[in-house]
Amino acid sequence: MSDVDDLTSLAARIAHGDVSPVDVIDTLLASIEALDADVLAYECLNPRVRADAERCAEEIARGERRGPLHGVPIAVKDNYLTADMPTTAGSRAPGYAFPNADSAAVARLRAAGAVLIGKTRTHEFAWGTETPPTCNPWDLSRIPGGSSGGSGAALAAGLACGALGSDTGGSIRIPASLCGVVGLKPTFGRVSRAGIVPHSWSLDHAGPLTLSVRDAALMLNVLAGFDARDAGSADMPVPDFTAQLDAGVAGLRIGVCRNHFSGANEVDVEARVEQAIADLAALGAQIVDFDVPNLQYGLGAIYAIELASSSAYHDRGLQQGATATMNDDVRTLIEIGRMVTAADYLKAEQLRTLLIEDFNAVFERVDAIVTPTSPVTAWHRGQASVITGGLEESPLAASWRLTYPFNLTGLPALSLPCGFDARELPVGLQVVGKPFDEATVLRVAQAYENVHRWHAMRAPIARSIAQ
Amino acid sequence: MSDVDDLTSLAARIAHGDVSPVDVIDTLLASIEALDADVLAYECLNPRVRADAERCAEEIARGERRGPLHGVPIAVKDNYLTADMPTTAGSRAPGYAFPNADSAAVARLRAAGAVLIGKTRTHEFAWGTETPPTCNPWDLSRIPGGSSGGSGAALAAGLACGALGSDTGGSIRIPASLCGVVGLKPTFGRVSRAGIVPHSWSLDHAGPLTLSVRDAALMLNVLAGFDARDAGSADMPVPDFTAQLDAGVAGLRIGVCRNHFSGANEVDVEARVEQAIADLAALGAQIVDFDVPNLQYGLGAIYAIELASSSAYHDRGLQQGATATMNDDVRTLIEIGRMVTAADYLKAEQLRTLLIEDFNAVFERVDAIVTPTSPVTAWHRGQASVITGGLEESPLAASWRLTYPFNLTGLPALSLPCGFDARELPVGLQVVGKPFDEATVLRVAQAYENVHRWHAMRAPIARSIAQ
Repeated sequence: MSDVDDLTSLAARIAHGDVSPVDVIDTLLASIEALDADVLAYECLNPRVRADAERCAEEIARGERRGPLHGVPIAVKDNYLTADMPTTAGSRAPGYAFPNADSAAVARLRAAGAVLIGKTRTHEFAWGTETPPTCNPWDLSRIPGGSSGGSGAALAAGLACGALGSDTGGSIRIPASLCGVVGLKPTFGRVSRAGIVPHSWSLDHAGPLTLSVRDAALMLNVLAGFDARDAGSADMPVPDFTAQLDAGVAGLRIGVCRNHFSGANEVDVEARVEQAIADLAALGAQIVDFDVPNLQYGLGAIYAIELASSSAYHDRGLQQGATATMNDDVRTLIEIGRMVTAADYLKAEQLRTLLIEDFNAVFERVDAIVTPTSPVTAWHRGQASVITGGLEESPLAASWRLTYPFNLTGLPALSLPCGFDARELPVGLQVVGKPFDEATVLRVAQAYENVHRWHAMRAPIARSIAQ
Repeated sequence: MSDVDDLTSLAARIAHGDVSPVDVIDTLLASIEALDADVLAYECLNPRVRADAERCAEEIARGERRGPLHGVPIAVKDNYLTADMPTTAGSRAPGYAFPNADSAAVARLRAAGAVLIGKTRTHEFAWGTETPPTCNPWDLSRIPGGSSGGSGAALAAGLACGALGSDTGGSIRIPASLCGVVGLKPTFGRVSRAGIVPHSWSLDHAGPLTLSVRDAALMLNVLAGFDARDAGSADMPVPDFTAQLDAGVAGLRIGVCRNHFSGANEVDVEARVEQAIADLAALGAQIVDFDVPNLQYGLGAIYAIELASSSAYHDRGLQQGATATMNDDVRTLIEIGRMVTAADYLKAEQLRTLLIEDFNAVFERVDAIVTPTSPVTAWHRGQASVITGGLEESPLAASWRLTYPFNLTGLPALSLPCGFDARELPVGLQVVGKPFDEATVLRVAQAYENVHRWHAMRAPIARSIAQ
């Protein structure tokens, strides 16, 4: 599988003619054929994928270069609209007709030369962290996280070398953490959400899942940019996110939030992340502890905003009884959302403003923040509770606790692997930056990845067919 | 009363030593003593007003100049916090303790040298357009409009020469229209609301009521500017708003919205405003008709936003039963507001975004818009309905129909007198501009005022004591 191991090296080898996009696609399709009946990462494959790869091969043979992803296969979460594949948003509910037109991010990938392999599974309407029926490649009896669980599982199983995800409360970072890959939720406004099935307008983010930090930078280079069709899009300069990747962390001030982010994590998660913090210090970073007391009110705020926005989007479906055909968990959330009052919504927005101010103040003292990504590693499908901080709680409650603060605040946040728990399940480290400072987030993550090459490890199922 | 007739000329005469601030205040206090038992414009007077005027007189005698309003008396709506006078927001409800500290706008007035006369009455918590018990100086059996009715009535009765108001759905412009004075709601973000009792955060605006357009420009010069304590404040350059006042309208494109703003107005209002449009055309403006079909959804949107925000602000009062002591109309609105769902609130915000885009498109074709300010002139206290477009409707429903669109969109809007109806009640003309282009709004209004000096007319009660 070394041919599709890393997006950056693959793109370089394709560009230099060392490997043909057709061979890359054929290898990937063979792996999907062999494994995806077990992993269930894909909702559908692109019927034109081989033709697209052949066209890329011809262009490259003629010396044409369409962009930095020319001939490189990318998977797309199934809540991004695509012109040549159907979109389901993980639902069979009637009355939702999604247009056959490329979303902004997909159009950018195509313009950069990417070949779209297929659509990856999402938790229904992106409203959950389990993504049934997809399995975690590290243990097929466990969930891959979500809602971008198909993208995370595809990467971990060697069935994709780059993928799109979306993140409203952690939906890129949680599957990245649980599947042992890299997931980047850029700053709110950095990547256009035009053409993504909405979940919660003010919390939704688009971004990549990849096998390495460098790949995340490469994909962000392609995806970032202002788009007037997305009301949340920011007209901000877009740097080359690969430029500072290897600048290291010596002298950087790295913040560690000592409330909310610690004390209620699985023991192995806490230990791996504390080790990662020590590793960053050993690389020359200055560790700065801080607290954000208002985080205790964050869960109520994001629930009010996310429930209300989701139910507003699904208003017609609610009126037409479409929720009756949804999975029970999603149906409940969408129906409950109607009961959030506007007054409570406004209080939630006020708390959000306070949290933004709190983190602005923190970022006067630090250059980046590191936390665990998820308090728990992958749980079993159907598991009723997990143990965090010595107490039982539901997997959903635990799984997004450390990611949603950065949907509320819109800050850029990346998850990368930082080791394994005693069950050999991946643990994720979250790196958070100032608004629009993804460059520093990537730089910190790259510094860690250069030393600890957890990301080079492959799940057992992927190793089973690797050369 | 010529001594206090116009803020601009008064400020100049005080600055030149032609008149003493003490004499100005004494004249005003004598008028208030003589008339305010009938008009009821003031909630309270400043116990230190004469001492303040004396201090200004001494400073001016010494050649000191504190600012453009040095020694000039200004009245303050009683929902602006003041250090030296109590604040009631027009309510006797228990549990609301307003601090004794200057609001941002009041602090700016003081820094510019103004002498604060007293606090003018507001409709309870600024939630209405009648302002009981204040009377309209043009007919004491009629209401002055609201919620800044005390400021409007004080100016019309000659009991103030400049005043602060606040405007959530028309509360500066409606009393200005009904009392025959000038009222300016600047662009959302232009003037700080810090220290104003909130009504609806995303709709509230602070601004002046004055006797002339030039006075409004002078007061805006003092009031405008960024303030980090107001989350809605905009960090925008502040021009000298008096600089372009006399540039005229020749060549300007003035838009007239032919839906929503016509057809459901009192006959005399429609006639006076059409005449004003013809007058502007005669002055060289190019009249451009347009439509904004989405305005038909505006009422639902502003009700959802205003009700929800108000109930969020009053949450503690609601929990403590404080609404039971409020006036019935306000109590009903605040209690109903709890029932607005967050999903409906979000749809209202989406409609607001559409309207902003609609008006942005209009402003590619026009430099300013003119409309009637209010479909109706002042009604009798307790009057159940008014006749607009041949049909009966409630005064509240009619009164804000033409003003609330510019709270939803945040566009700057000014009302100035444009004549009288058959009952000799003032009619108001509304001038609306692009975001942060109050200069053009003021320029159009000044061009009209230069020709039609309605604003120089005084209400009968004021004429009764005028020299």
